[in-house]
Amino acid sequence: MQQATPPIHNIVELLDANNVAEVAELFADAHPADIADALERLTPIKRPLAWTYIPEDSKGEVLYELNEGVFKDLAHELDKQELIDAIKVLDIDEIADLIPDLPEPLLADALFAVDTETRNNLGEVLSYPEDSAGGLMNLDTTTVRDNISLDVVLHFLRLKTELPEHTDTIYLVDREQRLTGILPVDRLLTQNGSDPAIKHAVETPVSFRCLDGEQDVAKAFADYDLISAPVVDEQHKLLGRITIDDVVDVIREQAEHDIMAAAGLREEEDIFAPVTKTSRNRTVWLAVNLVTALLGSWVIGQFEGSIQQLVALAVLMPIVASMGGNAGTQTLTVVIRGMSLGTISRGNMLNILKKEAMVGVLNGFIWAFVIALIAALWYQNIQLGIVIAAAMIANLVMGAIAGVCIPIFLEKVNIDPALAGGVALTTVTDVVGYFSVLGLATLVLL
Amino acid sequence: MQQATPPIHNIVELLDANNVAEVAELFADAHPADIADALERLTPIKRPLAWTYIPEDSKGEVLYELNEGVFKDLAHELDKQELIDAIKVLDIDEIADLIPDLPEPLLADALFAVDTETRNNLGEVLSYPEDSAGGLMNLDTTTVRDNISLDVVLHFLRLKTELPEHTDTIYLVDREQRLTGILPVDRLLTQNGSDPAIKHAVETPVSFRCLDGEQDVAKAFADYDLISAPVVDEQHKLLGRITIDDVVDVIREQAEHDIMAAAGLREEEDIFAPVTKTSRNRTVWLAVNLVTALLGSWVIGQFEGSIQQLVALAVLMPIVASMGGNAGTQTLTVVIRGMSLGTISRGNMLNILKKEAMVGVLNGFIWAFVIALIAALWYQNIQLGIVIAAAMIANLVMGAIAGVCIPIFLEKVNIDPALAGGVALTTVTDVVGYFSVLGLATLVLL
Repeated sequence: MQQATPPIHNIVELLDANNVAEVAELFADAHPADIADALERLTPIKRPLAWTYIPEDSKGEVLYELNEGVFKDLAHELDKQELIDAIKVLDIDEIADLIPDLPEPLLADALFAVDTETRNNLGEVLSYPEDSAGGLMNLDTTTVRDNISLDVVLHFLRLKTELPEHTDTIYLVDREQRLTGILPVDRLLTQNGSDPAIKHAVETPVSFRCLDGEQDVAKAFADYDLISAPVVDEQHKLLGRITIDDVVDVIREQAEHDIMAAAGLREEEDIFAPVTKTSRNRTVWLAVNLVTALLGSWVIGQFEGSIQQLVALAVLMPIVASMGGNAGTQTLTVVIRGMSLGTISRGNMLNILKKEAMVGVLNGFIWAFVIALIAALWYQNIQLGIVIAAAMIANLVMGAIAGVCIPIFLEKVNIDPALAGGVALTTVTDVVGYFSVLGLATLVLL
Repeated sequence: MQQATPPIHNIVELLDANNVAEVAELFADAHPADIADALERLTPIKRPLAWTYIPEDSKGEVLYELNEGVFKDLAHELDKQELIDAIKVLDIDEIADLIPDLPEPLLADALFAVDTETRNNLGEVLSYPEDSAGGLMNLDTTTVRDNISLDVVLHFLRLKTELPEHTDTIYLVDREQRLTGILPVDRLLTQNGSDPAIKHAVETPVSFRCLDGEQDVAKAFADYDLISAPVVDEQHKLLGRITIDDVVDVIREQAEHDIMAAAGLREEEDIFAPVTKTSRNRTVWLAVNLVTALLGSWVIGQFEGSIQQLVALAVLMPIVASMGGNAGTQTLTVVIRGMSLGTISRGNMLNILKKEAMVGVLNGFIWAFVIALIAALWYQNIQLGIVIAAAMIANLVMGAIAGVCIPIFLEKVNIDPALAGGVALTTVTDVVGYFSVLGLATLVLL
């Protein structure tokens, strides 16, 4: 990749060596996204120092590009006026993104620092949930009346010195500001200038309502290869537009969320946050895990007598629990993805349950055979091998069924399956794994 | 969201009810991405039937939009000529994407079905790795000489009836086809027509080399809010361009990959693939897991005598192993994300190790206290509580250290940390958890 100013990879070393002159020089030419990346690589204590070397006109964009956790932390360290000055030059949708993360006492100041028009516009964008089309939109639409000719549109554009970023389409509206068509800019360049604009509007326009969820917006942008799309109200009046750069951020944040949630983490976690803060953030997850682990231990505790008679059970039971957990997690992952991509619906859910249960049975038999062999050879005890094998089959089938049912249930009760699915599943496979090994052994062997 | 033709949610029900007339009618107006979604929701056996109702001119795009696993499967079912006819109308980069997934015997036929120019272009794109900038690029650049005026550029564009999709920039080249500038289309509309084109080229152009990795391309598009960007060779000659729609696919596939890999799954897995195929795909993962579980069991096996004397150890040891695994997975997840986002580098790695170890110590003490209390009360044995507490601290610190070191090591030996990190980590925390509980107990209690 080639760019006028490459990313700043050596920021940590430069600051460690106190080479601030070079930092200032690098920051002077760097893209705000690269400066933000550099700041994130620093420990929190060094960030305010580095901040002072960022060019004034980049500071706002840098704040906008920062990870949420890093932004919140830095915002607390910075001078109030400086922070507000940096933010107020941003686009409406960018300011709207940052405002909820500002320290409480600064909120009012920030709103009064911007001019009246911006404040009104901000009020509009902030009135929608952050994760809705309304919260994502910007208000910088380029709009013309739908009955004019392409030549007149061209003339109108020529009067502006520049168009808003990512203007790939001009919106056509009627007398009441209702959206009647979307005119791609390239048709303006290639089509006959005397044609009415509406004649060259796109055939299958996509528009969003303010309260559409950002996930639906992201899917539509990806499926229909959109660069920008209009947001309209109930009367189909044009309110604003969503652009692909913000949608790319949504897609990346969602991916981040899914990966972090599976480990009980929040996507905005700052990798260099103080030890106590990190420890606190992770405590809830470990507490939940302790409770589920205790449940498994309680099951084992019911069979202490059996274990004392046959210690091999204590040796082999973790294998059955672990295999069930792994097989079940595979099913769970496939089902959660299918649900979030829309591949799984009411109509085909039963097919999936049947299929995954069958996979569980098949894998159960394969691994039951292997583990039976290992157990029988290890302890010279064929009956023990058979008990472990039966427990393995039971737990793999249970893992498959739980892998399908748990995310469906969690979604019904409005709990994020990406967050709670894994813990719930391993609780089931631990309990069933221990119980089937110890219970069967108690019945058959002792 | 509003669009001319909404997604087809009820495809499963319609085909079950044999209502093919309505399927045909829905497909006739639907966007290819929506038809592809509908096909993915069907079991493999129903897909060839649904295929016959797709309008001829959408079939190629539908194939392109399908999940890789579903495409491969369907390609085997379809008539050879029909498949080739559908594919050959696609863009070069789209054909290049599909070709590696075609059934072997069709490869040559597909290459000969397209015209000579397309074949040569295909050869060019296919000569680069699929996950490189060269493999991502399309060849439909709109190029003009850099010394002409904006008016001449406008005139040149007017001679074409349409521009390639997502043409937000015109590329300026010199006499030797070397890229000298990137001219945004909107400046063409707003700036003085008699100015030379090069005067209005962007100030900080980003371009890619053929062999740049697709992850770097994706990060650059996201960071610099690009819609399209040029690909050049060593002499800076323009080869093609990459557009945001393909980059969005890369970002989504990467997210998919990371989530699926953590459960040992491949991102292209078809949710309705036959039971035997699914079972086979998942076998390797379960085999790896069995080996690691056996390692844990082997450690337990070394202390059979201790367990027989104090069965409480068998009851409590899974808690210590599980808490270490969970805490370690949190560290692991944060480190893997930091590495893939570039936040973690050689310069700050030691800081992270120190910090995570401290979090491990702090969390270790907190949960050691809790578990000591539980163990002491459960078994009326304070010494047992102290042993479990010490083991808990040891395992949480070990989990934190392993969470930092494992991904760094895996990356060094070129193994995907997203794939192998979790298994490696829980192996460590299981072994250390069992060993510290049983070893300490044997030393102190027995």
